[in-house]
Amino acid sequence: MSKLVFARHGESEWNLANLFTGWADVDLSEKGTQQAIDAGKLIKKHGIEFDVAYTSVLKRAIKTTDLALEYSDQMWVPVIKSWRLNERHYGGLTGLNKDDARKKWGADQVQIWRRSYDTLPPMMEHDAKYSAHNDRRYANLEDSLIPDGENLKVTLERALPFWEDHIAPALLDNKTVFVGAHGNSIRALVKHIKKLGDDEIMGVEIPNFPPLVFEFDDKLNPTKEYYLD
Amino acid sequence: MSKLVFARHGESEWNLANLFTGWADVDLSEKGTQQAIDAGKLIKKHGIEFDVAYTSVLKRAIKTTDLALEYSDQMWVPVIKSWRLNERHYGGLTGLNKDDARKKWGADQVQIWRRSYDTLPPMMEHDAKYSAHNDRRYANLEDSLIPDGENLKVTLERALPFWEDHIAPALLDNKTVFVGAHGNSIRALVKHIKKLGDDEIMGVEIPNFPPLVFEFDDKLNPTKEYYLD
Repeated sequence: MSKLVFARHGESEWNLANLFTGWADVDLSEKGTQQAIDAGKLIKKHGIEFDVAYTSVLKRAIKTTDLALEYSDQMWVPVIKSWRLNERHYGGLTGLNKDDARKKWGADQVQIWRRSYDTLPPMMEHDAKYSAHNDRRYANLEDSLIPDGENLKVTLERALPFWEDHIAPALLDNKTVFVGAHGNSIRALVKHIKKLGDDEIMGVEIPNFPPLVFEFDDKLNPTKEYYLD
Repeated sequence: MSKLVFARHGESEWNLANLFTGWADVDLSEKGTQQAIDAGKLIKKHGIEFDVAYTSVLKRAIKTTDLALEYSDQMWVPVIKSWRLNERHYGGLTGLNKDDARKKWGADQVQIWRRSYDTLPPMMEHDAKYSAHNDRRYANLEDSLIPDGENLKVTLERALPFWEDHIAPALLDNKTVFVGAHGNSIRALVKHIKKLGDDEIMGVEIPNFPPLVFEFDDKLNPTKEYYLD
Protein backbone atom coordinates (compact mmCIF):
# COMPACT_ATOMS: atom_id res chain seq x y z
CA MET A 1 0.00 0.00 0.00
CA SER A 2 1.38 3.38 -0.97
CA LYS A 3 0.41 6.88 0.11
CA LEU A 4 0.38 10.26 -1.61
CA VAL A 5 0.02 13.53 0.27
CA PHE A 6 -0.97 16.53 -1.83
CA ALA A 7 -0.34 19.95 -0.33
CA ARG A 8 -1.59 22.89 -2.29
CA HIS A 9 0.69 25.81 -1.45
CA GLY A 10 -0.50 28.06 1.35
CA GLU A 11 -2.20 31.35 0.54
CA SER A 12 -0.02 33.52 -1.71
CA GLU A 13 0.34 37.28 -1.81
CA TRP A 14 -1.69 37.31 -5.02
CA ASN A 15 -4.41 35.03 -3.65
CA LEU A 16 -4.74 37.66 -0.95
CA ALA A 17 -4.83 40.50 -3.52
CA ASN A 18 -7.37 38.58 -5.66
CA LEU A 19 -5.11 38.49 -8.75
CA PHE A 20 -4.87 35.78 -11.40
CA THR A 21 -1.47 34.21 -10.68
CA GLY A 22 -0.67 31.26 -12.93
CA TRP A 23 3.06 31.07 -13.60
CA ALA A 24 3.90 34.41 -11.94
CA ASP A 25 6.38 33.49 -9.19
CA VAL A 26 4.80 35.19 -6.19
CA ASP A 27 5.59 34.53 -2.56
CA LEU A 28 3.46 33.05 0.21
CA SER A 29 1.54 35.49 2.39
CA GLU A 30 2.11 35.40 6.14
CA LYS A 31 -1.01 33.24 6.46
CA GLY A 32 0.24 30.98 3.67
CA THR A 33 3.56 30.47 5.44
CA GLN A 34 1.68 29.48 8.59
CA GLN A 35 -0.50 27.07 6.58
CA ALA A 36 2.65 25.35 5.26
CA ILE A 37 4.06 25.10 8.78
CA ASP A 38 0.74 23.70 10.01
CA ALA A 39 0.76 21.16 7.16
CA GLY A 40 4.17 19.98 8.41
CA LYS A 41 2.86 19.70 11.97
CA LEU A 42 -0.15 17.66 10.81
CA ILE A 43 2.12 15.35 8.84
CA LYS A 44 4.26 14.89 11.94
CA LYS A 45 1.22 14.28 14.14
CA HIS A 46 0.11 11.51 11.77
CA GLY A 47 3.63 10.05 11.68
CA ILE A 48 3.80 10.17 7.88
CA GLU A 49 7.35 9.47 6.71
CA PHE A 50 8.13 10.44 3.12
CA ASP A 51 10.53 8.77 0.74
CA VAL A 52 10.46 11.54 -1.82
CA ALA A 53 8.84 14.94 -2.44
CA TYR A 54 7.90 16.62 -5.71
CA THR A 55 7.12 20.25 -6.30
CA SER A 56 6.92 22.87 -9.05
CA VAL A 57 9.50 25.51 -9.98
CA LEU A 58 7.38 28.24 -8.37
CA LYS A 59 8.48 29.48 -4.98
CA ARG A 60 5.08 29.35 -3.27
CA ALA A 61 5.00 25.57 -3.82
CA ILE A 62 8.71 25.08 -3.11
CA LYS A 63 8.46 26.96 0.19
CA THR A 64 5.35 25.02 1.14
CA THR A 65 7.23 21.78 0.45
CA ASP A 66 10.31 22.89 2.37
CA LEU A 67 8.26 24.05 5.38
CA ALA A 68 6.10 20.91 5.40
CA LEU A 69 9.25 18.77 5.43
CA GLU A 70 10.97 20.97 8.02
CA TYR A 71 8.07 20.91 10.45
CA SER A 72 7.65 17.16 10.08
CA ASP A 73 11.37 16.67 10.88
CA GLN A 74 12.32 15.23 7.50
CA MET A 75 14.02 18.09 5.73
CA TRP A 76 16.57 15.62 4.33
CA VAL A 77 13.95 13.95 2.08
CA PRO A 78 14.86 14.39 -1.61
CA VAL A 79 12.87 17.16 -3.33
CA ILE A 80 12.49 17.13 -7.12
CA LYS A 81 11.27 20.34 -8.78
CA SER A 82 9.52 20.30 -12.15
CA TRP A 83 7.76 22.89 -14.31
CA ARG A 84 5.22 20.13 -15.09
CA LEU A 85 3.74 20.61 -11.60
CA ASN A 86 3.37 24.38 -12.07
CA GLU A 87 0.01 26.07 -11.68
CA ARG A 88 -2.20 26.40 -14.74
CA HIS A 89 -0.77 29.22 -16.89
CA TYR A 90 -3.40 31.97 -16.85
CA GLY A 91 -2.21 33.61 -20.09
CA GLY A 92 -3.15 37.24 -20.56
CA LEU A 93 -5.13 37.20 -17.32
CA THR A 94 -1.93 36.83 -15.27
CA GLY A 95 -1.50 39.70 -12.85
CA LEU A 96 -5.04 41.03 -13.37
CA ASN A 97 -7.40 41.64 -10.50
CA LYS A 98 -10.32 39.24 -10.80
CA ASP A 99 -12.88 42.02 -10.35
CA ASP A 100 -11.16 44.14 -13.02
CA ALA A 101 -11.21 41.16 -15.37
CA ARG A 102 -14.97 40.80 -14.76
CA LYS A 103 -15.48 44.48 -15.59
CA LYS A 104 -13.42 44.15 -18.77
CA TRP A 105 -14.77 40.86 -20.14
CA GLY A 106 -17.95 40.33 -18.13
CA ALA A 107 -18.54 37.98 -15.20
CA ASP A 108 -19.83 35.19 -17.45
CA GLN A 109 -16.72 35.12 -19.64
CA VAL A 110 -14.40 35.20 -16.62
CA GLN A 111 -16.40 32.40 -15.01
CA ILE A 112 -16.00 30.34 -18.21
CA TRP A 113 -12.22 30.91 -18.18
CA ARG A 114 -12.07 29.84 -14.54
CA ARG A 115 -14.44 26.93 -14.63
CA SER A 116 -14.45 25.47 -18.14
CA TYR A 117 -12.31 22.39 -18.64
CA ASP A 118 -11.16 23.19 -22.15
CA THR A 119 -11.66 26.91 -22.85
CA LEU A 120 -8.33 28.71 -23.17
CA PRO A 121 -7.77 32.13 -21.58
CA PRO A 122 -6.49 35.02 -23.74
CA MET A 123 -2.91 34.12 -24.72
CA MET A 124 0.02 36.01 -23.18
CA GLU A 125 2.42 37.81 -25.52
CA HIS A 126 5.99 36.43 -25.57
CA ASP A 127 7.40 39.78 -24.49
CA ALA A 128 4.88 40.28 -21.67
CA LYS A 129 6.17 40.95 -18.17
CA TYR A 130 5.28 37.51 -16.85
CA SER A 131 6.09 35.52 -19.99
CA ALA A 132 7.98 32.29 -19.32
CA HIS A 133 9.80 32.58 -22.64
CA ASN A 134 12.33 35.01 -21.18
CA ASP A 135 12.72 33.25 -17.85
CA ARG A 136 16.02 31.44 -17.25
CA ARG A 137 14.31 28.58 -15.40
CA TYR A 138 12.62 27.43 -18.61
CA ALA A 139 15.67 27.91 -20.85
CA ASN A 140 16.26 24.16 -21.19
CA LEU A 141 12.76 23.56 -22.57
CA GLU A 142 11.89 23.54 -26.23
CA ASP A 143 10.08 26.79 -26.92
CA SER A 144 6.98 24.92 -28.12
CA LEU A 145 6.61 23.38 -24.63
CA ILE A 146 6.38 26.76 -22.91
CA PRO A 147 2.71 27.76 -22.60
CA ASP A 148 1.21 31.17 -23.25
CA GLY A 149 -2.08 30.25 -21.58
CA GLU A 150 -3.64 26.98 -20.41
CA ASN A 151 -6.97 25.44 -19.52
CA LEU A 152 -7.23 22.49 -17.13
CA LYS A 153 -7.10 20.05 -20.06
CA VAL A 154 -3.70 21.35 -21.20
CA THR A 155 -2.49 21.52 -17.59
CA LEU A 156 -3.28 17.82 -17.21
CA GLU A 157 -1.61 16.95 -20.52
CA ARG A 158 1.69 18.52 -19.49
CA ALA A 159 1.52 17.32 -15.86
CA LEU A 160 0.73 13.73 -16.82
CA PRO A 161 4.25 12.79 -18.07
CA PHE A 162 5.59 13.76 -14.64
CA TRP A 163 3.01 11.54 -12.97
CA GLU A 164 3.86 8.67 -15.31
CA ASP A 165 7.65 9.03 -15.05
CA HIS A 166 8.09 9.96 -11.38
CA ILE A 167 5.08 9.86 -9.08
CA ALA A 168 3.37 6.67 -10.31
CA PRO A 169 6.60 4.60 -10.34
CA ALA A 170 7.37 5.74 -6.78
CA LEU A 171 3.87 4.77 -5.61
CA LEU A 172 4.08 1.43 -7.40
CA ASP A 173 7.34 0.92 -5.51
CA ASN A 174 5.39 1.38 -2.25
CA LYS A 175 6.91 4.76 -1.54
CA THR A 176 5.24 7.45 0.54
CA VAL A 177 5.17 10.54 -1.63
CA PHE A 178 4.67 14.26 -0.98
CA VAL A 179 3.51 16.58 -3.75
CA GLY A 180 3.60 20.30 -3.00
CA ALA A 181 1.88 21.97 -5.91
CA HIS A 182 -1.00 24.20 -7.02
CA GLY A 183 -4.78 24.25 -7.14
CA ASN A 184 -4.98 23.27 -10.78
CA SER A 185 -1.98 20.95 -11.13
CA ILE A 186 -3.30 18.99 -8.13
CA ARG A 187 -6.82 19.07 -9.56
CA ALA A 188 -5.47 17.72 -12.87
CA LEU A 189 -3.75 14.82 -11.12
CA VAL A 190 -6.84 14.12 -9.00
CA LYS A 191 -8.88 13.87 -12.22
CA HIS A 192 -6.40 11.30 -13.51
CA ILE A 193 -6.24 9.35 -10.23
CA LYS A 194 -10.01 9.18 -9.79
CA LYS A 195 -10.78 8.89 -13.51
CA LEU A 196 -13.22 11.80 -13.22
CA GLY A 197 -15.08 13.23 -16.19
CA ASP A 198 -14.32 16.70 -17.55
CA ASP A 199 -17.36 18.20 -15.83
CA GLU A 200 -16.88 16.35 -12.57
CA ILE A 201 -13.39 17.72 -11.95
CA MET A 202 -14.48 21.33 -12.40
CA GLY A 203 -16.61 20.95 -9.26
CA VAL A 204 -13.62 19.86 -7.18
CA GLU A 205 -11.88 22.55 -5.13
CA ILE A 206 -8.46 21.93 -3.59
CA PRO A 207 -8.02 24.08 -0.44
CA ASN A 208 -4.70 25.71 0.50
CA PHE A 209 -4.93 23.74 3.73
CA PRO A 210 -5.08 21.00 5.00
CA PRO A 211 -3.18 18.39 2.91
CA LEU A 212 -5.17 15.82 0.94
CA VAL A 213 -4.15 12.15 1.20
CA PHE A 214 -4.68 9.29 -1.22
CA GLU A 215 -3.90 5.67 -0.46
CA PHE A 216 -3.51 3.16 -3.31
CA ASP A 217 -3.58 -0.55 -3.93
CA ASP A 218 -0.80 -2.22 -5.88
CA LYS A 219 -2.51 -1.38 -9.19
CA LEU A 220 -2.62 2.30 -8.27
CA ASN A 221 -6.36 2.32 -7.69
CA PRO A 222 -7.21 4.80 -4.92
CA THR A 223 -8.53 2.95 -1.86
CA LYS A 224 -8.84 5.91 0.55
CA GLU A 225 -9.06 9.66 0.22
CA TYR A 226 -9.09 12.07 3.19
CA TYR A 227 -7.87 15.40 4.46
CA LEU A 228 -5.41 15.42 7.37
CA ASP A 229 -6.85 16.75 10.61
CA MET B 1 35.04 28.76 -17.41
CA SER B 2 32.98 27.34 -14.59
CA LYS B 3 32.30 28.61 -11.10
CA LEU B 4 31.74 26.95 -7.73
CA VAL B 5 30.32 28.80 -4.73
CA PHE B 6 30.86 27.11 -1.37
CA ALA B 7 28.64 28.27 1.48
CA ARG B 8 29.39 26.80 4.85
CA HIS B 9 26.11 26.75 6.77
CA GLY B 10 25.46 29.75 8.99
CA GLU B 11 26.11 29.52 12.73
CA SER B 12 24.20 26.62 14.28
CA GLU B 13 22.62 26.35 17.70
CA TRP B 14 25.44 24.03 18.73
CA ASN B 15 28.19 26.28 17.34
CA LEU B 16 26.69 28.87 19.65
CA ALA B 17 26.64 26.45 22.59
CA ASN B 18 30.24 25.33 21.83
CA LEU B 19 29.27 21.66 21.34
CA PHE B 20 30.84 19.13 18.98
CA THR B 21 28.17 18.67 16.31
CA GLY B 22 29.21 16.36 13.49
CA TRP B 23 26.19 14.45 12.18
CA ALA B 24 23.77 15.67 14.87
CA ASP B 25 21.00 17.42 12.93
CA VAL B 26 20.85 20.74 14.72
CA ASP B 27 19.19 23.91 13.49
CA LEU B 28 20.67 27.25 12.51
CA SER B 29 20.82 29.92 15.20
CA GLU B 30 19.12 33.25 14.55
CA LYS B 31 22.51 34.66 13.52
CA GLY B 32 23.10 31.65 11.26
CA THR B 33 19.75 32.18 9.53
CA GLN B 34 20.72 35.79 8.88
CA GLN B 35 24.12 34.69 7.52
CA ALA B 36 22.37 32.40 5.02
CA ILE B 37 20.06 35.24 3.96
CA ASP B 38 23.06 37.55 3.60
CA ALA B 39 24.83 34.90 1.50
CA GLY B 40 21.84 34.94 -0.84
CA LYS B 41 21.91 38.73 -1.04
CA LEU B 42 25.65 38.70 -1.86
CA ILE B 43 25.07 36.12 -4.58
CA LYS B 44 22.33 38.31 -6.02
CA LYS B 45 24.51 41.42 -5.82
CA HIS B 46 27.21 39.61 -7.83
CA GLY B 47 24.63 38.36 -10.34
CA ILE B 48 25.65 34.71 -9.89
CA GLU B 49 23.13 32.41 -11.59
CA PHE B 50 23.29 28.76 -10.57
CA ASP B 51 22.53 25.73 -12.68
CA VAL B 52 22.48 23.31 -9.78
CA ALA B 53 22.96 23.22 -6.01
CA TYR B 54 24.27 20.45 -3.79
CA THR B 55 23.92 20.09 -0.05
CA SER B 56 24.10 17.54 2.75
CA VAL B 57 21.22 15.74 4.48
CA LEU B 58 21.64 17.93 7.59
CA LYS B 59 19.13 20.73 8.05
CA ARG B 60 21.63 23.49 8.86
CA ALA B 61 23.17 23.06 5.39
CA ILE B 62 19.83 22.48 3.63
CA LYS B 63 18.34 25.64 5.16
CA THR B 64 21.44 27.61 4.24
CA THR B 65 21.10 26.38 0.66
CA ASP B 66 17.38 27.12 0.51
CA LEU B 67 17.82 30.64 1.95
CA ALA B 68 20.78 31.44 -0.29
CA LEU B 69 18.73 30.43 -3.34
CA GLU B 70 15.62 32.23 -2.09
CA TYR B 71 17.39 35.53 -1.45
CA SER B 72 19.17 35.38 -4.80
CA ASP B 73 15.79 34.86 -6.55
CA GLN B 74 16.54 31.38 -7.89
CA MET B 75 14.64 29.09 -5.56
CA TRP B 76 13.69 26.93 -8.57
CA VAL B 77 17.31 25.75 -9.05
CA PRO B 78 17.56 21.97 -8.57
CA VAL B 79 18.93 20.97 -5.15
CA ILE B 80 20.52 17.56 -4.66
CA LYS B 81 21.03 16.37 -1.07
CA SER B 82 23.69 13.79 -0.21
CA TRP B 83 25.06 12.30 3.02
CA ARG B 84 28.49 12.48 1.34
CA LEU B 85 28.50 16.26 1.92
CA ASN B 86 27.69 15.87 5.64
CA GLU B 87 29.95 17.38 8.28
CA ARG B 88 32.79 15.23 9.63
CA HIS B 89 31.26 12.68 12.03
CA TYR B 90 32.63 13.57 15.45
CA GLY B 91 32.08 10.10 16.93
CA GLY B 92 31.84 9.90 20.71
CA LEU B 93 32.52 13.62 21.00
CA THR B 94 29.16 14.46 19.39
CA GLY B 95 27.01 16.56 21.69
CA LEU B 96 29.85 17.25 24.17
CA ASN B 97 30.79 20.75 25.21
CA LYS B 98 34.31 21.47 23.94
CA ASP B 99 35.45 22.73 27.35
CA ASP B 100 34.07 19.61 29.04
CA ALA B 101 35.91 17.48 26.49
CA ARG B 102 39.15 19.31 27.33
CA LYS B 103 38.61 18.64 31.03
CA LYS B 104 37.94 14.98 30.38
CA TRP B 105 40.70 14.19 27.87
CA GLY B 106 43.05 17.16 28.18
CA ALA B 107 43.40 20.16 25.90
CA ASP B 108 46.23 18.54 23.91
CA GLN B 109 44.22 15.44 23.07
CA VAL B 110 41.15 17.47 22.07
CA GLN B 111 43.36 19.72 19.92
CA ILE B 112 44.73 16.61 18.17
CA TRP B 113 41.21 15.33 17.48
CA ARG B 114 40.25 18.72 16.07
CA ARG B 115 43.37 19.48 14.10
CA SER B 116 45.02 16.20 13.08
CA TYR B 117 44.34 15.06 9.54
CA ASP B 118 44.21 11.37 10.28
CA THR B 119 43.60 10.82 13.99
CA LEU B 120 40.15 9.36 14.63
CA PRO B 121 37.95 10.60 17.50
CA PRO B 122 36.55 8.09 20.03
CA MET B 123 34.02 5.96 18.13
CA MET B 124 30.29 6.38 18.79
CA GLU B 125 28.31 3.33 19.92
CA HIS B 126 25.67 2.10 17.47
CA ASP B 127 22.93 2.57 20.06
CA ALA B 128 24.06 6.07 21.07
CA LYS B 129 21.56 8.92 20.93
CA TYR B 130 23.08 10.52 17.84
CA SER B 131 24.05 7.32 16.01
CA ALA B 132 23.28 7.36 12.30
CA HIS B 133 22.67 3.61 12.33
CA ASN B 134 19.14 4.10 13.63
CA ASP B 135 18.31 7.13 11.52
CA ARG B 136 15.82 6.60 8.67
CA ARG B 137 17.68 8.96 6.35
CA TYR B 138 20.61 6.54 6.16
CA ALA B 139 18.49 3.39 5.84
CA ASN B 140 19.36 2.95 2.15
CA LEU B 141 23.10 2.84 2.88
CA GLU B 142 25.08 -0.31 3.51
CA ASP B 143 25.78 -0.40 7.22
CA SER B 144 29.54 -0.45 6.60
CA LEU B 145 29.27 2.99 4.92
CA ILE B 146 27.74 4.64 8.00
CA PRO B 147 30.54 6.16 10.08
CA ASP B 148 30.92 5.99 13.87
CA GLY B 149 33.58 8.71 13.89
CA GLU B 150 35.70 10.38 11.21
CA ASN B 151 38.88 12.39 10.75
CA LEU B 152 39.33 14.77 7.82
CA LYS B 153 41.01 12.02 5.78
CA VAL B 154 37.94 9.76 6.01
CA THR B 155 35.63 12.73 5.41
CA LEU B 156 37.46 13.43 2.15
CA GLU B 157 37.37 9.75 1.13
CA ARG B 158 33.57 9.58 1.42
CA ALA B 159 32.97 13.06 -0.02
CA LEU B 160 35.20 12.49 -3.05
CA PRO B 161 32.83 10.14 -4.94
CA PHE B 162 30.19 12.88 -4.81
CA TRP B 163 32.68 15.38 -6.22
CA GLU B 164 33.67 12.93 -8.96
CA ASP B 165 30.13 11.86 -9.88
CA HIS B 166 28.22 15.15 -9.54
CA ILE B 167 30.17 18.35 -8.88
CA ALA B 168 33.17 17.83 -11.19
CA PRO B 169 31.04 16.73 -14.19
CA ALA B 170 28.80 19.80 -13.73
CA LEU B 171 31.83 22.11 -13.62
CA LEU B 172 33.39 20.40 -16.65
CA ASP B 173 30.06 21.08 -18.38
CA ASN B 174 30.57 24.80 -17.65
CA LYS B 175 27.83 24.89 -15.04
CA THR B 176 27.71 27.37 -12.18
CA VAL B 177 27.42 25.31 -9.02
CA PHE B 178 26.38 26.03 -5.43
CA VAL B 179 27.53 23.77 -2.60
CA GLY B 180 25.93 24.40 0.80
CA ALA B 181 27.83 22.22 3.23
CA HIS B 182 29.95 22.12 6.38
CA GLY B 183 33.32 23.30 7.67
CA ASN B 184 35.02 19.96 7.19
CA SER B 185 33.27 18.64 4.08
CA ILE B 186 34.13 21.94 2.33
CA ARG B 187 37.67 21.80 3.71
CA ALA B 188 38.03 18.26 2.35
CA LEU B 189 36.92 19.36 -1.13
CA VAL B 190 39.19 22.42 -1.00
CA LYS B 191 42.12 20.09 -0.24
CA HIS B 192 41.24 18.08 -3.32
CA ILE B 193 40.68 21.13 -5.56
CA LYS B 194 43.94 22.84 -4.53
CA LYS B 195 45.93 19.60 -4.18
CA LEU B 196 46.99 20.66 -0.68
CA GLY B 197 49.11 18.47 1.59
CA ASP B 198 47.73 16.86 4.74
CA ASP B 199 49.33 19.49 6.97
CA GLU B 200 48.45 22.44 4.75
CA ILE B 201 44.70 21.81 4.82
CA MET B 202 44.58 21.70 8.61
CA GLY B 203 45.59 25.38 8.65
CA VAL B 204 42.62 26.33 6.43
CA GLU B 205 39.51 27.64 8.19
CA ILE B 206 36.19 27.92 6.33
CA PRO B 207 34.05 30.70 7.88
CA ASN B 208 30.25 30.44 8.25
CA PHE B 209 30.10 33.58 6.14
CA PRO B 210 30.74 34.87 3.46
CA PRO B 211 30.63 32.30 0.61
CA LEU B 212 33.92 31.15 -0.97
CA VAL B 213 34.16 31.12 -4.77
CA PHE B 214 36.41 29.07 -7.05
CA GLU B 215 36.69 29.57 -10.78
CA PHE B 216 38.14 26.81 -12.95
CA ASP B 217 39.67 26.32 -16.38
CA ASP B 218 38.42 23.55 -18.64
CA LYS B 219 40.74 21.01 -16.98
CA LEU B 220 39.27 21.86 -13.57
CA ASN B 221 42.37 23.68 -12.39
CA PRO B 222 41.36 26.53 -10.06
CA THR B 223 42.15 29.87 -11.67
CA LYS B 224 40.65 32.20 -9.05
CA GLU B 225 39.68 31.92 -5.41
CA TYR B 226 37.91 34.66 -3.44
CA TYR B 227 35.28 35.41 -0.84
CA LEU B 228 32.16 37.29 -1.90
CA ASP B 229 31.93 40.79 -0.51
